[in-house]
Amino acid sequence: MIGVGIIGFGYWGPNLVRNFFQTKGARVRVVCDARPGRLETAAAGYPSVRVTTDPMDCINDPAVDAVAVATPVSSHYDLALAALRAGKHVLVEKPMTAGVEQGRRLVDEAARRGLTLMVDHTFIYMGAVRKIKEIMAQESFGDVYYYDSTRVNLGLFQHDVNVIWDLAVHDLSIMDFLLPQKPVAVSATGMAHVPGRPENVAWLTFYFQENVVAHVNVNWLSPVKLRQTLIGGNKKMIVFDDLHSSEKVRVYDRGITLTEDPESMYTVMVGYRTGDMWAPAYEQTEALRLEAAHFVDCLEHGTSPITGGEMGLRVVAALEAADASLKKRGQLVELPR
Amino acid sequence: MIGVGIIGFGYWGPNLVRNFFQTKGARVRVVCDARPGRLETAAAGYPSVRVTTDPMDCINDPAVDAVAVATPVSSHYDLALAALRAGKHVLVEKPMTAGVEQGRRLVDEAARRGLTLMVDHTFIYMGAVRKIKEIMAQESFGDVYYYDSTRVNLGLFQHDVNVIWDLAVHDLSIMDFLLPQKPVAVSATGMAHVPGRPENVAWLTFYFQENVVAHVNVNWLSPVKLRQTLIGGNKKMIVFDDLHSSEKVRVYDRGITLTEDPESMYTVMVGYRTGDMWAPAYEQTEALRLEAAHFVDCLEHGTSPITGGEMGLRVVAALEAADASLKKRGQLVELPR
Amino acid sequence: MIGVGIIGFGYWGPNLVRNFFQTKGARVRVVCDARPGRLETAAAGYPSVRVTTDPMDCINDPAVDAVAVATPVSSHYDLALAALRAGKHVLVEKPMTAGVEQGRRLVDEAARRGLTLMVDHTFIYMGAVRKIKEIMAQESFGDVYYYDSTRVNLGLFQHDVNVIWDLAVHDLSIMDFLLPQKPVAVSATGMAHVPGRPENVAWLTFYFQENVVAHVNVNWLSPVKLRQTLIGGNKKMIVFDDLHSSEKVRVYDRGITLTEDPESMYTVMVGYRTGDMWAPAYEQTEALRLEAAHFVDCLEHGTSPITGGEMGLRVVAALEAADASLKKRGQLVELPR
Amino acid sequence: MIGVGIIGFGYWGPNLVRNFFQTKGARVRVVCDARPGRLETAAAGYPSVRVTTDPMDCINDPAVDAVAVATPVSSHYDLALAALRAGKHVLVEKPMTAGVEQGRRLVDEAARRGLTLMVDHTFIYMGAVRKIKEIMAQESFGDVYYYDSTRVNLGLFQHDVNVIWDLAVHDLSIMDFLLPQKPVAVSATGMAHVPGRPENVAWLTFYFQENVVAHVNVNWLSPVKLRQTLIGGNKKMIVFDDLHSSEKVRVYDRGITLTEDPESMYTVMVGYRTGDMWAPAYEQTEALRLEAAHFVDCLEHGTSPITGGEMGLRVVAALEAADASLKKRGQLVELPR
Repeated sequence: MIGVGIIGFGYWGPNLVRNFFQTKGARVRVVCDARPGRLETAAAGYPSVRVTTDPMDCINDPAVDAVAVATPVSSHYDLALAALRAGKHVLVEKPMTAGVEQGRRLVDEAARRGLTLMVDHTFIYMGAVRKIKEIMAQESFGDVYYYDSTRVNLGLFQHDVNVIWDLAVHDLSIMDFLLPQKPVAVSATGMAHVPGRPENVAWLTFYFQENVVAHVNVNWLSPVKLRQTLIGGNKKMIVFDDLHSSEKVRVYDRGITLTEDPESMYTVMVGYRTGDMWAPAYEQTEALRLEAAHFVDCLEHGTSPITGGEMGLRVVAALEAADASLKKRGQLVELPR
Repeated sequence: MIGVGIIGFGYWGPNLVRNFFQTKGARVRVVCDARPGRLETAAAGYPSVRVTTDPMDCINDPAVDAVAVATPVSSHYDLALAALRAGKHVLVEKPMTAGVEQGRRLVDEAARRGLTLMVDHTFIYMGAVRKIKEIMAQESFGDVYYYDSTRVNLGLFQHDVNVIWDLAVHDLSIMDFLLPQKPVAVSATGMAHVPGRPENVAWLTFYFQENVVAHVNVNWLSPVKLRQTLIGGNKKMIVFDDLHSSEKVRVYDRGITLTEDPESMYTVMVGYRTGDMWAPAYEQTEALRLEAAHFVDCLEHGTSPITGGEMGLRVVAALEAADASLKKRGQLVELPR
Repeated sequence: MIGVGIIGFGYWGPNLVRNFFQTKGARVRVVCDARPGRLETAAAGYPSVRVTTDPMDCINDPAVDAVAVATPVSSHYDLALAALRAGKHVLVEKPMTAGVEQGRRLVDEAARRGLTLMVDHTFIYMGAVRKIKEIMAQESFGDVYYYDSTRVNLGLFQHDVNVIWDLAVHDLSIMDFLLPQKPVAVSATGMAHVPGRPENVAWLTFYFQENVVAHVNVNWLSPVKLRQTLIGGNKKMIVFDDLHSSEKVRVYDRGITLTEDPESMYTVMVGYRTGDMWAPAYEQTEALRLEAAHFVDCLEHGTSPITGGEMGLRVVAALEAADASLKKRGQLVELPR
Repeated sequence: MIGVGIIGFGYWGPNLVRNFFQTKGARVRVVCDARPGRLETAAAGYPSVRVTTDPMDCINDPAVDAVAVATPVSSHYDLALAALRAGKHVLVEKPMTAGVEQGRRLVDEAARRGLTLMVDHTFIYMGAVRKIKEIMAQESFGDVYYYDSTRVNLGLFQHDVNVIWDLAVHDLSIMDFLLPQKPVAVSATGMAHVPGRPENVAWLTFYFQENVVAHVNVNWLSPVKLRQTLIGGNKKMIVFDDLHSSEKVRVYDRGITLTEDPESMYTVMVGYRTGDMWAPAYEQTEALRLEAAHFVDCLEHGTSPITGGEMGLRVVAALEAADASLKKRGQLVELPR
């Protein structure tokens, strides 16, 4: 039985508590939050759980084997590092850290101590996303050409991070999961419309070594909420619409056909193909439920998580590079290998 | 009565012929196309019109007062220049020319001769776009923050231009019409997935002198057709969906409210406001019908067209700069003043 | 402080418990369910509440002032009557009873004892529905012509009632709330496709004294879920789409204009008018929250609930008449005055 | 070469002319309309065609082998009968006649003379509808349970027919084409909201000998246009949305599974099955083009048309019975065998 301590009972923490409560092999022992009001709510809902305002009290509790960190980004590093140093496994909210340097240290610390470091990239545990990976792995899908995502809404301005760290982080984890290649450089643009506030709109283009390209559109000031991703390939194309209630994944039997222009050796004729559309059924279980079970499973069997520290670090590196390019109005910034 | 000659009877030419036929004050005299089969079709549909395969024959016909050029982009400059030199007014398909230098010469030639040079930026004559301009001009709209457009579909690969010149040209004309400011620099990214073919996907970010920013997403390899533009402001926001059959324009009473954080002089509190949505009725007349009437009206009264050569030139300059940035993977390129 | 006992902790009961827990002036004292497993769940979530498998134990608890009945329809009458006889106020799930006769007895019993009898017609407490009533009350709305609702999905076959009692009950309560007139007769059709099971698809037409008509389409075997109501009037029309995430209510400035045909005294010319569409903002609070507060408020001030026994009885009478007509393949059945 | 005469050049007639012009084996010889202005338009567009205001002049023209009747319903019978008596084949607009008696006489007259009588039920030649028939014919589709169609919009009030004859006629032809069974009785309800005008809203339920049922919702006073048909079966279900630009047909792998309740011999357990959704590609050619070609083909080979007089008669019989039921507020009316 894995004892779990959860630090942060704000927006996301309650989801972690609820799901770990329903996870076989786990028992929630401690909930920590600096705000007494939040702890009252936690205590009322989960009388069996100990509550505390002191993170170290949670981390050092002998009943706690693993710590879930669901606090603002700026505190991820300190809390996760303290937990690892106390010999506890860690599940940390995304983005893993506020920078690459911090991320690398966490990964090293976990490796040195033989502890599990997992990042809560929830999308990767969603039935729809897994179904997309399954489809893309098939021969019939062909080669990927592009990934183009729009993730906009009238959203809360974050205090410590801009819209890239808040929203594009989702697409970076999905791209890391779905695409066989990793991005090598990024050009980002955007703007901060409110004086003294971080960028609220941004557009990111990621280049890859082959002729693959990715684009992410994030916006905190959109009148409508959109969560739409196009994945284009030479044989098939996918639309992933996360707001559709039942058919989030649509696969289009569309693409181009290339033939040599009979009148010239130098040019290629481009033809079109449009066939059926297909919306596959997929696993409906709540993603966080599957993720909590996967975390416990990794701890019990000593296996590596799908969304481990290395992946979390790649995502942070991409965010950091995008931020740097944004500051320079689209100038290309290379990602670390 | 204005005699009209139309050069090019391919995809768009027939629309010009049909609309000029129904325009008071205009009479279609000549239709020109290099392909005899196209001329047969034109002759069958419009027995009163003379057909010819020779553009100069059309341009020099004394019955022709104005020439409409609906040929591929690469021939716009030569044909329009020849028409102007023959003393004919010109309506040229968009983009006006394949480059800024050519565009400037056309504008100068028309000015020197006192002839009308108009560009067929059809969107500007669409009831929905005019309604948007009307709404944005009202006090209650506030300041514009951004223009963000997605214009993608499974489209024909053009031979002589890339996806920017084919699709982004629409947004550049709409932006020129709607936004009080003109863009000063552009960062563009994209990719050519088919060897030997122009770029089929591109993303453009335009910077303005104030804190306004614009983004355009164009793609010839999208499984679904999207024509959606978000226009965000501090008081209201607009969604323009050109594919909606009846409610293309939706105005959202949404925005942010700023108050000084009482606990600090340095930060701003950002609040949200969500109110009604409103889809105004707008003029339903075919845009090209209004445009043809406007062209004739300008000729009769010697007035300047809304989509005149100067506007066409600004659009070409933006396209050229975007192309240059695309080649340099997002590096900022300034637009000519 | 009103002590509340809740009988039935299946699908809907937990929502009642949760909402009464958050209602000022109410305290949930007892939860009753025949299934021990359900009581375990209730006890785990609400340690302060007493649980019991015996409804009379709940009803007779001196700490219980009001009983909420959330059991299958067939048991509503017995439980509600027992509660009233024990001097307790009653909130009963819709439909109030399985027939008119039972319904009338409950209404009489509550009246005789001066107790509150309220029916849980949740839709009436929904912000969107209240906004529609507000709009229809305005002079500018004009006269109602029809109410036409489609309420279909792939739904669970009920054991004791057919699709009319399960789904049309919602529209009957909404019609009772929105329309100034009450229906006088009904023609219903439908079918039971599964042998030994109740009707799974039905279409109901209600006639009114004036030229108003209502239609309800209910179906347990639809591949897609639809919740769409059209309300037509002579000046404006409304579409209520309960599945839209943010714009459930759309008001269309559309209608007809009548003029006397100048060529004839006997005929009327019908013209059309299409203007703006408007999607008003509305109260977003959970309907059941407002309903629980209203129930407590009625008890505290001795006022009549909006969805009281008389209304519940009218709904049951309409359902019973529709059932009778359905059995006779559409033959008109009059409703009781 | 079949010489074609077209009577009626109002809303639909021009579509017939345009399509027969492009049909191999046919030549449009005469266009007839009582309004000189319409004939001017016809003559301008088709200089090779003779125009006349006299239907008999068209019918008796020796160059005319077949007559297409595109006039108001009330004149179909007289014109079609005159054409048949003159020895001409007939394509008549739907509904074929204003009543069963007239329809039977036309069918008999055509049979007696060995002439082709075809009704312009255009939907039957639409790629989407043919694809649906193909899918329903497959073993995997299973048995049909119901057909439920919504066909509403803000439509023109017709002068001589009510909304049933204007809109439900489409569904009756589609049902005749798709369903293996024919309806045996109908219950219809509806209302005329404008004094002196025909019914503008109606709901029709058709019963079949087996446990199949059909429902059609038609309305001339709807704020929004809807063209949606649900076809439910025990193994698969179809949604046909004629307003969708590209995916009009969606096939749902959904249905119910029946098992005997282990605890009882008398009841059936109903389970659910939800699988993939599939939107097949289908023929995109304009339906009327295919229909014109089919008409010519039938004449050339002496074969029977898919939408011949017998089918047209069944549709008229269903409309007449629905009208009778509507007058009696839903009372069941049997259809002639």
